[in-house]
Amino acid sequence: MKWDNIGEMPCSVARSLSVVGDRWSMLILRSAFMSIRRFDDFQNILQIPRHILSTRLKKLVELGVLNKVAYQQAPLRYEYRLSEKGIDLYPIILGLMAWGDKWMDGGLGAPLQLVHQRCGKVFTPVMVCSECHEPLDPRAVKPVLNPAALMAMTDQKLTG
Amino acid sequence: MKWDNIGEMPCSVARSLSVVGDRWSMLILRSAFMSIRRFDDFQNILQIPRHILSTRLKKLVELGVLNKVAYQQAPLRYEYRLSEKGIDLYPIILGLMAWGDKWMDGGLGAPLQLVHQRCGKVFTPVMVCSECHEPLDPRAVKPVLNPAALMAMTDQKLTG
Repeated sequence: MKWDNIGEMPCSVARSLSVVGDRWSMLILRSAFMSIRRFDDFQNILQIPRHILSTRLKKLVELGVLNKVAYQQAPLRYEYRLSEKGIDLYPIILGLMAWGDKWMDGGLGAPLQLVHQRCGKVFTPVMVCSECHEPLDPRAVKPVLNPAALMAMTDQKLTG
Repeated sequence: MKWDNIGEMPCSVARSLSVVGDRWSMLILRSAFMSIRRFDDFQNILQIPRHILSTRLKKLVELGVLNKVAYQQAPLRYEYRLSEKGIDLYPIILGLMAWGDKWMDGGLGAPLQLVHQRCGKVFTPVMVCSECHEPLDPRAVKPVLNPAALMAMTDQKLTG
């Protein structure tokens, strides 16, 4: 495949980064995965300026990554919960954490360990192939254009 | 575990984001995983302003994620290759790509498919537990403080 072609294709990495490509959004999501749900709790944990937190939460709700849910009626109070779309970001958070543990621990070891309650063990996350279940090495992965998406794009251009 | 404790611990996610927490760095790395190595090729593919590309490449080299290697002597020319530390970012790139394919494809399907040359099949990446090899659900993962890292931090404070 020529790079000319890949370059012209919309890129899923770039699209994802349009949602989670800033540091605060990712740290808000990391906190959400650790069961933080309320504005003041995000603010306390992250020490993030309130107006930035407010903007980022609003954006994450608009994008469907967090749901804003009333947890109290009088006075009305909201909390922010991961949607299914948000929960699907978990591998990215785990990937960032595992990489930081390995390469950025300053020689002191991982600050947190993860226990898998299913098997009861401390684990590290491993990215594997959905088909053969082997760990993925970039040198053994070949990106190819998806013919269905190419066709759909062409149709859209013709009818649009 | 109380959040008070986790909040005080250095966070590997935050540390990783200090390296790859901006959109351009991540897109440069995505391109590096697709065998792009030279300044002009990064520039063509990403349509990134040259001074930003130059700053980002310099930072990624300083951080040890890319190696700057001479590929020609007269005139002297350099290219940028993923180091081992850089190659270890692959699960994060795959995670961003898979999430974008699923949630941001605009109904047109994934732009690219990935073929695993080991098994020969089109695959999706799956994050699994290193111990029981089952896919990871955040509701079945419990973060706990790493006692070794806590101890090392305390020692450092006492002797520092």
